[in-house]
Amino acid sequence: MNVLVINCGSSSLKYQLIDSESEAVLAKGLCERIGIDGRLVYQKTGLDKEITEAAMPTHKQAIQMVLDALVNPKTGAIASLSEIDAVGHRVVHGGEKFAASTLLTPEVLKTIEECNDLAPLHNPANLIGIDACKELMPNVPMVGVFDTAFHQTMPKKAYLYGLPHEYYEKYKVRRYGFHGTSHSFVSKRTAEFLGMDLKNSKIIVAHLGNGASISAVLNGECVDTSMGLTPLEGLVMGTRSGDIDPAIMEFIAKKENLDIEGIMNVLNKKSGVQGMSGLSSDFRDLQAGHEAGNELATNAIEVFSYRVAKYIGSYVAAMNGVDAIAFTAGIGENVNLVREKVMSYLGYLGVTVNQAVNDATHGDEAIISTADSKVKVCVIPTNEELAIARETVALVK
Amino acid sequence: MNVLVINCGSSSLKYQLIDSESEAVLAKGLCERIGIDGRLVYQKTGLDKEITEAAMPTHKQAIQMVLDALVNPKTGAIASLSEIDAVGHRVVHGGEKFAASTLLTPEVLKTIEECNDLAPLHNPANLIGIDACKELMPNVPMVGVFDTAFHQTMPKKAYLYGLPHEYYEKYKVRRYGFHGTSHSFVSKRTAEFLGMDLKNSKIIVAHLGNGASISAVLNGECVDTSMGLTPLEGLVMGTRSGDIDPAIMEFIAKKENLDIEGIMNVLNKKSGVQGMSGLSSDFRDLQAGHEAGNELATNAIEVFSYRVAKYIGSYVAAMNGVDAIAFTAGIGENVNLVREKVMSYLGYLGVTVNQAVNDATHGDEAIISTADSKVKVCVIPTNEELAIARETVALVK
Repeated sequence: MNVLVINCGSSSLKYQLIDSESEAVLAKGLCERIGIDGRLVYQKTGLDKEITEAAMPTHKQAIQMVLDALVNPKTGAIASLSEIDAVGHRVVHGGEKFAASTLLTPEVLKTIEECNDLAPLHNPANLIGIDACKELMPNVPMVGVFDTAFHQTMPKKAYLYGLPHEYYEKYKVRRYGFHGTSHSFVSKRTAEFLGMDLKNSKIIVAHLGNGASISAVLNGECVDTSMGLTPLEGLVMGTRSGDIDPAIMEFIAKKENLDIEGIMNVLNKKSGVQGMSGLSSDFRDLQAGHEAGNELATNAIEVFSYRVAKYIGSYVAAMNGVDAIAFTAGIGENVNLVREKVMSYLGYLGVTVNQAVNDATHGDEAIISTADSKVKVCVIPTNEELAIARETVALVK
Repeated sequence: MNVLVINCGSSSLKYQLIDSESEAVLAKGLCERIGIDGRLVYQKTGLDKEITEAAMPTHKQAIQMVLDALVNPKTGAIASLSEIDAVGHRVVHGGEKFAASTLLTPEVLKTIEECNDLAPLHNPANLIGIDACKELMPNVPMVGVFDTAFHQTMPKKAYLYGLPHEYYEKYKVRRYGFHGTSHSFVSKRTAEFLGMDLKNSKIIVAHLGNGASISAVLNGECVDTSMGLTPLEGLVMGTRSGDIDPAIMEFIAKKENLDIEGIMNVLNKKSGVQGMSGLSSDFRDLQAGHEAGNELATNAIEVFSYRVAKYIGSYVAAMNGVDAIAFTAGIGENVNLVREKVMSYLGYLGVTVNQAVNDATHGDEAIISTADSKVKVCVIPTNEELAIARETVALVK
């Protein structure tokens, strides 16, 4: 079965066509600057990337261009659109309505719309992508895979904030968590890779990318995660602050003469390791800065790693123990310095590091703890598109 | 040496007269509604409480009434003011300027004033109390004891936020921590009580009162703490939210049509276990509610305890281990249910609970873990006034 995986943002759209039997990517790419000018990137596996600058005033036109590229006689991955058997859509926020992926029926779309409020930048864009696909492929089954769904198993003690209860009752203000597709995929793969029984395991997944979050997965179910109502909470990220004293917002607002929107813009886009270092949100730049003696770059790496270690520590307490810790996503898969720093805090758990393997691991599956380490630590590359394709197949086959 | 300890707020003032040799409290009490109408509570140790309703338009007049009561021929604790050898003042915020208690010289007072910005509700009130005492007792040495001082040993990785570095440079936005006098007192006493070498120890202090904070104390020095720029961050408290997704502020502001000040008022005064339960900020009420089947009271206790356990877990990671955990302040000393719930998460550390001792401990020093518990857990009543008196004596004798 061929599954088209769509991750639609407000002015961009990523896609992959995946053969679900072989799990091979047949083609992938993205549309950028939708509604502005337009740029299509398309790559059939094995061939060079094609870049086309072309007007794409709407998401429908962008997706039409993707479909045209997929069936292009010269470089297309398939002969006709009838070879697309299903479409899997990433949907950011499922609120409390969706604890699992679901077929996108008209009722379901209405329910997703009711969650727009909780993710005003993301959900409407996801819905536009779904609508455009439905228009262009009216007879192809479509599935929504939610970033929040995996975390819906969290108990109340983990998802309730210390806020007036009416905010939960009236507005559903609570911890939701994000990157759920990745946390689900990586926790399952961790158990498999380490030969553990997922149903009898305590796994912590550190998804460290430009956005970063950690989850505690007990017997295969998420019991806590670091992102909250929105993806701002938790770890220090590329440009996001993560946890701060909430009173800082008032303090800075006064000092810098900003309103709440202005502060939110700083916390989401000008903070994190980028803001701390004044250098970059990219860990390659930070590491180069650190090695060149840039103190702010060093601080950013130290604070980032320390916060990860503290979250891991807190989730070990949340589960009263841990069997395995998995690093994933851009930084988790590639930056051995960060992994080394994080693990340096965890000796008390019986973590012992295989330095040579950790140093050599960049983007591959590997066990980076020693054979006798009491807690296994590994690198498990995430693959959200494949996870979405699998979820889609499970619902349409 | 007799030390008068003063804790001065904007419209209230607490005091104790302590004999530093015996460490006995000779008299204590408070002034309330200063500048409104006025009420003096005075109690000589061993006698009944005296309550006097009397106009106290200014702090100077309030302190004059305290001094009059202390030398009152019938119930006074001392014969004349010449028996007050020193005054120790609690000062909330010492910024980065004060890492220890200090004699209150005119230069020091100026420096404290420079920190007003960081604690606009507290520091000015503290300074008013100091000025009033200086006017009334011009020849008595006075010492400032800072809530933040003990935490000044924190490393950068613990005190820097994931914010633009210029906010630290320009405004000194960073983690400071509070309750430092208590964390210092309790960590020292914990080592003494357990027969440990403070200079070679890893201690976590859970100061759980209406305000609540946790600290990680490595070899006698604070290396991390849960309160931040202000006392709002960290644990769920009586009426304060503690940690939340910062984006919640924008979300609620829009929903409830509030500005930042309005939101801050909710987070400081209408949140915490009070807001969660809709019942009370007092754990006696919450426990009664819980036992009567009030689900929101149960949630509040669960969330409070879970957050404490997670902070403990994160500080174990911060220190790469822990030797002892101490509970203190109102809830920490008295609510065995909370201690039990917190300890239930910590089996992985080798914590084993002495249930009988935990159940029986209310306000006394006790070891509530078993003799073979790998990590010792104890209850250590805090005594901030005594700590202030000791700090004062050390500087004036």
